[in-house]
Amino acid sequence: MSTEAEPTSAQVAHQEATAAAAEATRRLIRALRLADAPPDVLQRAEDLVAEAAELLEPHRVDHPVVMQGALRADLGNMHPTISKDPADFFPYSSVVGPLNPLSPPITLHFDGERVRGTASLEAPYAGPPGMVHGGIIALIFDELLGATNVCHGVGAFTGTLSVRYERPTPLRGELELDGWLERIDGRKVFSHGTISHAGEVTARAEGIFIQSDLTRR
Amino acid sequence: MSTEAEPTSAQVAHQEATAAAAEATRRLIRALRLADAPPDVLQRAEDLVAEAAELLEPHRVDHPVVMQGALRADLGNMHPTISKDPADFFPYSSVVGPLNPLSPPITLHFDGERVRGTASLEAPYAGPPGMVHGGIIALIFDELLGATNVCHGVGAFTGTLSVRYERPTPLRGELELDGWLERIDGRKVFSHGTISHAGEVTARAEGIFIQSDLTRR
Repeated sequence: MSTEAEPTSAQVAHQEATAAAAEATRRLIRALRLADAPPDVLQRAEDLVAEAAELLEPHRVDHPVVMQGALRADLGNMHPTISKDPADFFPYSSVVGPLNPLSPPITLHFDGERVRGTASLEAPYAGPPGMVHGGIIALIFDELLGATNVCHGVGAFTGTLSVRYERPTPLRGELELDGWLERIDGRKVFSHGTISHAGEVTARAEGIFIQSDLTRR
Repeated sequence: MSTEAEPTSAQVAHQEATAAAAEATRRLIRALRLADAPPDVLQRAEDLVAEAAELLEPHRVDHPVVMQGALRADLGNMHPTISKDPADFFPYSSVVGPLNPLSPPITLHFDGERVRGTASLEAPYAGPPGMVHGGIIALIFDELLGATNVCHGVGAFTGTLSVRYERPTPLRGELELDGWLERIDGRKVFSHGTISHAGEVTARAEGIFIQSDLTRR
């Protein structure tokens, strides 16, 4: 049973317009990261971007929506139509949120047992030459495992996250993500995940997450 | 002895213009994340941002500079004037790079023994309400520990990274970062770090980094 009203058409229009502006911003981030442009072109781009920021800043709200659904263990029951896509319940996430320009092009989907996903990361997410930044890999794992927990109705706070980097994760490579629930022990939720490329695991993670009163049913 | 020429004034102008455009983009990311703006305002912002991206895209280069100095163990000797600020040797980093719009407002400084830093993270980096995203914390630690290694002349690839979240890391709080080299054992470099707020550690990390032929002297 839902405790939230269905979104109004105005809310839908706002979210769609925000998602479109976020996507344009992602395009800008990528273009700027890869541009060897003359200073006058960079200056013109800076002016346009500043103008866009100035348009938005007067509309700043003090209490932005922050992943409202993320801490509700029974989210899947509340929004059965969206429960299979973590981007819907983490809309502002810096990892999978369509409304957050920081989020890289990652898609996650819950198949009823595991959260699987794909990603292809470009230059803004680079670490050593040709490789994805190790910290970006850890960032993705935290989200992947956290989303796995939410999809299983055991959303929880990260207690420990351990990432093992087994081989280079290539930039611009087609990456496969896999997250699964290992076991639950009282308040502790143990979740694991892998990132693979061309059929080989490049990195794996183990997380121990803690259910709190906020996240328990 | 340096194997690189001093940057030309044209290169300096390019970097400064890129840094300014990146800073404007950070401002845009923050404004968009916090804006409850009408769709027509969001649409206008989107158009401006797309126009900026279109200006830059024709200047795309195939081989962007990717943290050129990061893998050089003797970087400190090569660039003694910049060796104390990881932002200088990771200029395009998604964590501390002034030329990468993704990088949050983090400053790191090597005091000759430890890498210390400060950060204050806003809504784009949010996880649970009022808290920094656990994955962003892991991202920061990977960079903090990696920079610590480079500053000690033992730049290396991340092998494992383990993060322990001890209490909530508050959004918009003044955070203190501390990274240090624990020990070196053959090719393995063991580095640790903490993130603190108001004098209390909120999260700590242990990393094992592997020196390769690429990163060894």
